[in-house]
Amino acid sequence: MKQSQLFTHTLKESPKDEVSLNAQLLIRGAYIYKEMAGVYSYLPLGLRVINKIENIIREEMDAIGGLEMKTSIFQNKDVWEKSGRWDDNVVNNWFKTKLKNGAELGLSFTNEEAYANILKQYINSYKDLPVYPYDFKTIFRNEARSKSGIFRGREFYWKALYSFSKDEKEHQEFYEKAKKAYQNIFQRAGIGNLTYLTFASGGSFSKFSHEFQTLTEAGEDTIYIDEKKNIAVNKEVYTDEVLKELNLNKKDLVEKKAVEVGNIFSLGTKFSDPFNLKYKDKDGQENLVIMGSYGIGLGRLMGTIVEVLADDRGIIWPESVAPYKVHLVDLRSKMDDKLYQILQNSEIEVIYDDREISPGMKLKDADLMGMPYRLVLSDKLGDKVELKRRDSEDISLYSEKEVVEILKGNYK
Amino acid sequence: MKQSQLFTHTLKESPKDEVSLNAQLLIRGAYIYKEMAGVYSYLPLGLRVINKIENIIREEMDAIGGLEMKTSIFQNKDVWEKSGRWDDNVVNNWFKTKLKNGAELGLSFTNEEAYANILKQYINSYKDLPVYPYDFKTIFRNEARSKSGIFRGREFYWKALYSFSKDEKEHQEFYEKAKKAYQNIFQRAGIGNLTYLTFASGGSFSKFSHEFQTLTEAGEDTIYIDEKKNIAVNKEVYTDEVLKELNLNKKDLVEKKAVEVGNIFSLGTKFSDPFNLKYKDKDGQENLVIMGSYGIGLGRLMGTIVEVLADDRGIIWPESVAPYKVHLVDLRSKMDDKLYQILQNSEIEVIYDDREISPGMKLKDADLMGMPYRLVLSDKLGDKVELKRRDSEDISLYSEKEVVEILKGNYK
Repeated sequence: MKQSQLFTHTLKESPKDEVSLNAQLLIRGAYIYKEMAGVYSYLPLGLRVINKIENIIREEMDAIGGLEMKTSIFQNKDVWEKSGRWDDNVVNNWFKTKLKNGAELGLSFTNEEAYANILKQYINSYKDLPVYPYDFKTIFRNEARSKSGIFRGREFYWKALYSFSKDEKEHQEFYEKAKKAYQNIFQRAGIGNLTYLTFASGGSFSKFSHEFQTLTEAGEDTIYIDEKKNIAVNKEVYTDEVLKELNLNKKDLVEKKAVEVGNIFSLGTKFSDPFNLKYKDKDGQENLVIMGSYGIGLGRLMGTIVEVLADDRGIIWPESVAPYKVHLVDLRSKMDDKLYQILQNSEIEVIYDDREISPGMKLKDADLMGMPYRLVLSDKLGDKVELKRRDSEDISLYSEKEVVEILKGNYK
Repeated sequence: MKQSQLFTHTLKESPKDEVSLNAQLLIRGAYIYKEMAGVYSYLPLGLRVINKIENIIREEMDAIGGLEMKTSIFQNKDVWEKSGRWDDNVVNNWFKTKLKNGAELGLSFTNEEAYANILKQYINSYKDLPVYPYDFKTIFRNEARSKSGIFRGREFYWKALYSFSKDEKEHQEFYEKAKKAYQNIFQRAGIGNLTYLTFASGGSFSKFSHEFQTLTEAGEDTIYIDEKKNIAVNKEVYTDEVLKELNLNKKDLVEKKAVEVGNIFSLGTKFSDPFNLKYKDKDGQENLVIMGSYGIGLGRLMGTIVEVLADDRGIIWPESVAPYKVHLVDLRSKMDDKLYQILQNSEIEVIYDDREISPGMKLKDADLMGMPYRLVLSDKLGDKVELKRRDSEDISLYSEKEVVEILKGNYK
C-alpha cells in the first residue's frame, strides 16, 4: 500500500471524550473512527488488523472441529422467551427495535438461544453429535456508560462457538481442547505471556467458568495470580473455600488488574432444556444435549494488544496481527518505489510512505502506527537501507538485497 | 467436508410462509435458516457461498482502486440530520433503537452519510483525492411486507463502495470503470448472460442511474430490453423522451420481469454539500467533492443465482460460487474415504456423502444441493467412478486417476 493513496492519516489528538489509551492510540493511528461513545468504525488499517485476528481465531476453531456459519443480527422474541431472557428485568442491556406492525425484535445480544433453536431442527440422533458451530458477528449491549474504548463497546465484533455434546464426558474433552485453542490464540496474537487462565464463577451447571485475563491497569477485573502454576483466580470467586479446592495458597497469589480477553463456559442443559434439544442414544432413549460456550471479542483483543504493548511513541504491533509487516519510510529528496516493488514482489506486506511531508513527520507516524519493522531510505545512507524493529532501539544498515532476505526470514 | 460431520441436512419442506423459490430451495438445501420473515441466518454451506461471492466482489473492487473498511452498524442521529434523512417522513423504513438515556440510534440503513462524515476528517487537498472506500456490512430496512425470500430482506448483507472525486470528469472515468467491474462480477457469478445494464432514474444530480437487472419472473422490476445493443431501460424511465435520448426504438424492445442485482449512482454534491466535504485545489480554491455510490446485495445475488439457474430437482451452482466443486456420493455397501482424500490432497473442494442412508436419498440430496460435479461410487461400477455435471444429463465413467485430472482441469 502506498501511503499517499490511503485516505486516512494520523491525528495529533483523539476526541476529548476518549479517555482510554487503546482507543486514543487507535484513533490517532488511523485504525478506528469513533462514531459515538462505545461505537467505532474500522478504517482500512484497522480492518486489516481485525482480519488477521479473525484468521488466527478461525484457524484455531477449525482445528478443533469448529464449523463456521453466520447467524442473523435480528433475534426473535419468541425464541428468547423460551429461555426467559427476553425480559428487560432479566437482561437489562438489550437493544431492541420494532417492525412496522409493532412487533419487537432484539439486536444480537448473544447466541445461545439462536443456536439451540437452529440445532433443534437438525439434531435427532447420537450420530448427529457432537457439533461445534461458530459465528463471527456483531453484538450489541446497551451499556449505561462506555468509557473503556474498544474494551467494552456498545457494538462489538465477536466470535462465539457453542459445543453440543452427548454427555458430560464428551463435553469435558472438548472443553479442554478449547482451553488449549484459546491459549494458542493469545500466544499467536502476541499477548500469551501476559494472559492467564483464570477461574471465574460458573453459574448453575458448573462450579467454574474459565476466563483468559490479560494483565493491564486499564482492565476492569481484579485477579489473583499464582505465577508458578501459571493460573489465576477472579476476585469474584476469591474465597478460602475456592482456594482450597484449587489447591492454591494465599501467600503465593499476587493481585493484579486485568482485562478479560476470552471466556469459556460449561452450560450443561441450561439452554437445551427450555428448547427441548434432545437426541436419541443408541438404545433409543432421549437425552438432553450438553452445551458449552466459547467467546472472544475481536475488537477487545485488538485494544488489549495496543494497550499492553504500546510505548510512549505509539502502537507496537506483533507481526501476526500487524496490518503490514514493514513500514518503508522514504526520506530521500527524490523518492522512487523500487524497493517497495521488490518487497511487494517478495510477498512481504509493506506500507510505503511516499508522501511529500517532512522526514520528522514520517518517522513520528511510523512510530505511532507501529508496524513491526521500519525501513528508512535517505540521501545520507546512499544505497544502504536502515532497518529497525519497532520494539527495539537497535538500528542496522543493509543492502537492499540483504534487507529483503532478512524480512523473508532467510537470515538474521 | 464429510457430510456425516455437517450438522445440517436437507429438508423435505420449507416453512409454509416461505413463498419464494430462492428461499425455499436454499432452506431445503440447508444453506439458510429462516429466523423470521425477511431475516435469515447462513448455515455453514450458505456461508461458503456468501464468502465466494464476497471474494469475487472484493477482487473486482480492489482492481479499480477500492479500499475496504468496516463501518459501524449503529448510525448517528446527528450525522443523519445533516442530510435531512433522519426524519421518518423522509426515510420511511428505518429501524431505530435507543440508548438507556433515551437517545436514538439508527441501524445501518445505507452509508452515504457515514462515509461523507468520516472522510470530512481526512480530505483536505486535491492530493487526497480520488478515494474509493467500501464496506461489506449488514443493512436493515423496515419493509412492511417481506415475501421475496432473500431478494428483499429486512436484514441483508451488502457491499457498498463510494467514490469521492475532484470533478465530474474524474467521477465519470471511475463510474465507467465501476460499470465494467460490475459486469465482471455478474459474469463471474454465472448470471452474466441474463443480466442487463439498465438505465434507471437518476435523482437530482444525474439524469440516469444504472442498474444491473437479471431476468426472472420472480423479479419485482419491469425492464425493456434491446437484445442487439445489450442494454435495457427500467419501466420507471420508459418514456418516448428517454428512448429518443438513448437512441432506442420501441419496436426493438422486449418487456421482461427482472431483479435488480446491483446499482451504480452518480450523487454529485448531494451529500458533500450538507457535510461541507470540500478539498483545496492546486490554486487553493475550495471545491465540493463529487460522490458516487455502487451497491450490491450479496444475499440477493445468491438468491438470484438460485432462482434463475435451478431446475425442478434443485439448485445448480456455478463453479465460481459453489460451496464445493464436487459432491462425492458413496453408494457402496462398504464405504471408504480413499477418493475423498485424493481429491482433498489435489486441492479440489469436495463434500463427501458418507452418511448411512439410502442411495436414493443421497442422489436426491446431491441434486437439491447443487454442486457443479457429482461423482458416484457404487458396487455396480467396480473401480470406475461415475461423473455427471449438475447442469447436464450426460454420465461418463472414468478411473479414479482420470477423474482427478478432469476435475483439476487438466483434460476434458
